[in-house]
Amino acid sequence: MWIYEANLEYDAKVSYADPRMAQLLIAQYGGPNGELAAAMQYLNQRFDMENKRARQLLVDVGTEELAHLEIIGVTIRKLLKGIKPMQARELGIASHYVEHENGLFYVNPSGNSWTADYLKHVGDPVADMTSNIAAEERARAVYEHLISLTDDPLVQDTLRFLRERELVHAARFKEALYIIKEEMNTRKNFYQY
Amino acid sequence: MWIYEANLEYDAKVSYADPRMAQLLIAQYGGPNGELAAAMQYLNQRFDMENKRARQLLVDVGTEELAHLEIIGVTIRKLLKGIKPMQARELGIASHYVEHENGLFYVNPSGNSWTADYLKHVGDPVADMTSNIAAEERARAVYEHLISLTDDPLVQDTLRFLRERELVHAARFKEALYIIKEEMNTRKNFYQY
Amino acid sequence: MWIYEANLEYDAKVSYADPRMAQLLIAQYGGPNGELAAAMQYLNQRFDMENKRARQLLVDVGTEELAHLEIIGVTIRKLLKGIKPMQARELGIASHYVEHENGLFYVNPSGNSWTADYLKHVGDPVADMTSNIAAEERARAVYEHLISLTDDPLVQDTLRFLRERELVHAARFKEALYIIKEEMNTRKNFYQY
Amino acid sequence: MWIYEANLEYDAKVSYADPRMAQLLIAQYGGPNGELAAAMQYLNQRFDMENKRARQLLVDVGTEELAHLEIIGVTIRKLLKGIKPMQARELGIASHYVEHENGLFYVNPSGNSWTADYLKHVGDPVADMTSNIAAEERARAVYEHLISLTDDPLVQDTLRFLRERELVHAARFKEALYIIKEEMNTRKNFYQY
Amino acid sequence: MWIYEANLEYDAKVSYADPRMAQLLIAQYGGPNGELAAAMQYLNQRFDMENKRARQLLVDVGTEELAHLEIIGVTIRKLLKGIKPMQARELGIASHYVEHENGLFYVNPSGNSWTADYLKHVGDPVADMTSNIAAEERARAVYEHLISLTDDPLVQDTLRFLRERELVHAARFKEALYIIKEEMNTRKNFYQY
Amino acid sequence: MWIYEANLEYDAKVSYADPRMAQLLIAQYGGPNGELAAAMQYLNQRFDMENKRARQLLVDVGTEELAHLEIIGVTIRKLLKGIKPMQARELGIASHYVEHENGLFYVNPSGNSWTADYLKHVGDPVADMTSNIAAEERARAVYEHLISLTDDPLVQDTLRFLRERELVHAARFKEALYIIKEEMNTRKNFYQY
Repeated sequence: MWIYEANLEYDAKVSYADPRMAQLLIAQYGGPNGELAAAMQYLNQRFDMENKRARQLLVDVGTEELAHLEIIGVTIRKLLKGIKPMQARELGIASHYVEHENGLFYVNPSGNSWTADYLKHVGDPVADMTSNIAAEERARAVYEHLISLTDDPLVQDTLRFLRERELVHAARFKEALYIIKEEMNTRKNFYQY
Repeated sequence: MWIYEANLEYDAKVSYADPRMAQLLIAQYGGPNGELAAAMQYLNQRFDMENKRARQLLVDVGTEELAHLEIIGVTIRKLLKGIKPMQARELGIASHYVEHENGLFYVNPSGNSWTADYLKHVGDPVADMTSNIAAEERARAVYEHLISLTDDPLVQDTLRFLRERELVHAARFKEALYIIKEEMNTRKNFYQY
Repeated sequence: MWIYEANLEYDAKVSYADPRMAQLLIAQYGGPNGELAAAMQYLNQRFDMENKRARQLLVDVGTEELAHLEIIGVTIRKLLKGIKPMQARELGIASHYVEHENGLFYVNPSGNSWTADYLKHVGDPVADMTSNIAAEERARAVYEHLISLTDDPLVQDTLRFLRERELVHAARFKEALYIIKEEMNTRKNFYQY
Repeated sequence: MWIYEANLEYDAKVSYADPRMAQLLIAQYGGPNGELAAAMQYLNQRFDMENKRARQLLVDVGTEELAHLEIIGVTIRKLLKGIKPMQARELGIASHYVEHENGLFYVNPSGNSWTADYLKHVGDPVADMTSNIAAEERARAVYEHLISLTDDPLVQDTLRFLRERELVHAARFKEALYIIKEEMNTRKNFYQY
Repeated sequence: MWIYEANLEYDAKVSYADPRMAQLLIAQYGGPNGELAAAMQYLNQRFDMENKRARQLLVDVGTEELAHLEIIGVTIRKLLKGIKPMQARELGIASHYVEHENGLFYVNPSGNSWTADYLKHVGDPVADMTSNIAAEERARAVYEHLISLTDDPLVQDTLRFLRERELVHAARFKEALYIIKEEMNTRKNFYQY
Repeated sequence: MWIYEANLEYDAKVSYADPRMAQLLIAQYGGPNGELAAAMQYLNQRFDMENKRARQLLVDVGTEELAHLEIIGVTIRKLLKGIKPMQARELGIASHYVEHENGLFYVNPSGNSWTADYLKHVGDPVADMTSNIAAEERARAVYEHLISLTDDPLVQDTLRFLRERELVHAARFKEALYIIKEEMNTRKNFYQY
């Protein structure tokens, strides 16, 4: 179980409202390579990951991704602050307003609802941990795309912080994959099939 | 942000492995009215719920639903314990095994991946809180269906505990709706349109 | 069975073509809280709603929502009248044109196809009727958002008429819920689980 | 707009409860080639079908498909009559029960929610009417599959009636296609591109 | 099995980068009536199409549609050439950039992921071949829409070439349908049901 | 473009009809980690993979996966040979029969339609190649699950052959990732953000 603590892992600031950036940033809230996807993939895998250290890592990183989801959510809300309906319409981003006003929803920038089809889990520790490393690499790349889509130095700071965390997670998943493979003693099940 | 605490909110026990029940119980893991859906709906709504007490309630209940998701996950794993591939095939539940072995995934009993299309959020406090009350009523009904689909008294105990919690949540959301309406002073925005 | 009558429930007029508003208004044609969703939810629930008055209400309201769907469809077509491909491209709304020309399709403003995942039905009269009240509240809120996204007084008139109808439906579903609860005599099934 | 008339287009009878057949028959309720899909495709296309007779035909057939949807719904309910939860579980069809009890939902026999992605509409009268002819041929084929999956002569009677109607619709759509092509005077737009 | 040959079926040229057209043209890459949909529908149907000539035709046309998919992919890449992130943002098409940079993905112009729900296959040769004729008619109509959405004569040339091929495919599927019906000797199975 | 050659990459044999295995094996035809998913992911990535050797590898492996898709398709058809409707119903696998007779469709064993949401492509060579390695590891694991779900030695032979190919592909993608990283000279873009 989880305890909620009312402070953000990173103090998400913005220099000015920027609704178009809000609409793009939602990629990391409800997109295929975003924080919800990461959190849900790791927290789901832990139930059958037999290696204890790997399992603990999945819980730790999964829980941190929930905190990142919160950072993204707060940032998007600040980027949307004070936007009126007709402004949203002028900017070409009123599709979101119609359904959710200036609130959030688990969608990607094109407005597609988040789906568990984005996630990977086959119940094989090598395959699953490799999927996690790939997930972190993709999240990193999407953060890089987002950094190139804003001029706001404060938003860039937040995005750089989150990008760094993905690199750390990728490194830790690589260690876990090494441990898992060691434990399997050079893949005994290689010979089984 | 959240802190993970390594103990379950309820000590989920089962009397015996029951893979068919596992396949049905997954409704509360990844189904349209399950715990993931509840957690995600409330945690998403909090970002734009202006009433402070209602917002806090959304965080509290959303966080508890994550704990319930964990209870369901642990129970499913126990119900699947020791099941071999050919047994799964005999029981007609190998569709899940092929893709996820005896692990979990965010699907409903028919194997459909969870989607945010299940969730409701329009950014209107009255509409959103009413959606939450409805969500709790549906979760209650699904728990009642599940109770009638097992003879295992330990599984039934867990399901009854979770059903009770949904009733509590529904009651608290009704209070919040009352407060929101009071605050709006008998719906001033009624006259606005 | 249904008989079609060739006149609209409300004389849907527009002051001028407004293709961007057409693209937003489609929320009530094929969106998660739109008229198709309402019609389909109620007409589906009637098959197992045991209370006779509630069942009749579901048929009546469901049938009226089909009429509203028609009003929305006619309005969108008027808002798109005379729009040429290159104009659609200039306005940033040609994504729809490519696939459907100036016709309609069951999508939300972001172009997502309508899905029954939007609908709620668990076969419990209390839960289902509560889901319907919530559906009407959300439809009302979306109409309010749409009213704020246009300056055309004729379109606003139609939207206000439809919004009013949602309030009436919500009130009638609340009555039905009261009747259902009375009939259950303070929820006997409360003690069953 | 539509007027509801409280009698079925065909007196749908069943000889005995047959929950497995109910689960298969739902193909014609919420499946890709079922009655909802047919009704929604035709009623959507009418908004931009310029030929008056073709447009009227779309309304007529679309409205009749709604009546067929009702026939299917009533039949499924009869096939499920009296089924208890544990029976549903024994029969391997409890996935539906968990989410919807013995009620209906717009799904195919595998439990996938209906989606407008099944529908075809490109705003070109020749292409759209051809899509409708194909839709009727598929519906016919699915009825033939269903007839071969039951021994109940009363259910077969209903299915044969509905299959016959699809043949009639296909014939009328072929006539409409002929008229549309005539009107285009051997496809003037052939030379346009 | 297939052998890849490193040249295009048609020399896809563009006069200038046109990222908005790229975003629309993706309809024929990952949209419901695009080349992937065509290829996948025909290659899937061949496995149970009993008439030998019809089966061979499905393989031939399916394989050609893969070549068309390649032509579309190359054209989109040329239309996106040299586009910088901030330019994409200015043009209102950065939603794609965030997730895929200037690469491709199987989506329609609204950004919806391709799904096999677009495809038709019921295992009845008449119904399936009719579905294919309809698919070609729709593809033709979408090419016509695209031609009207660009002023670039080179892009129009490619689109006209592909449109012509769809007309050829439609004609060949009509011949195959005729052969299939002949073989069935005026539909013996008409009397079977 | 591709040339079709009318022989299979591996002579797919089966010892006996086994419709339940057919229903499970479809995981590799239309499932999230199946051959269609692999082929489509690699063939899509090649359009923007700048390293020439990596790009050629994507085309080669993507084309081979299409051949594997064909092997799976042929095997499923053999496993379904001679199955009558009522047999399918008895075996609990008639959901597929209703919609597709004994033909194929791009679904997973639970009957969910294939979606491009399964695929990964962010336009970053390191992230994309890592995603491919993970895809191959998952495909391997799913083949291992399938091998454990059949006793037919001929089907096992085919599955082992295909599993071996995935290991070869994984190894080649690892080489390509190494080359890509070398070329980036220890990730210059690491310092860019």
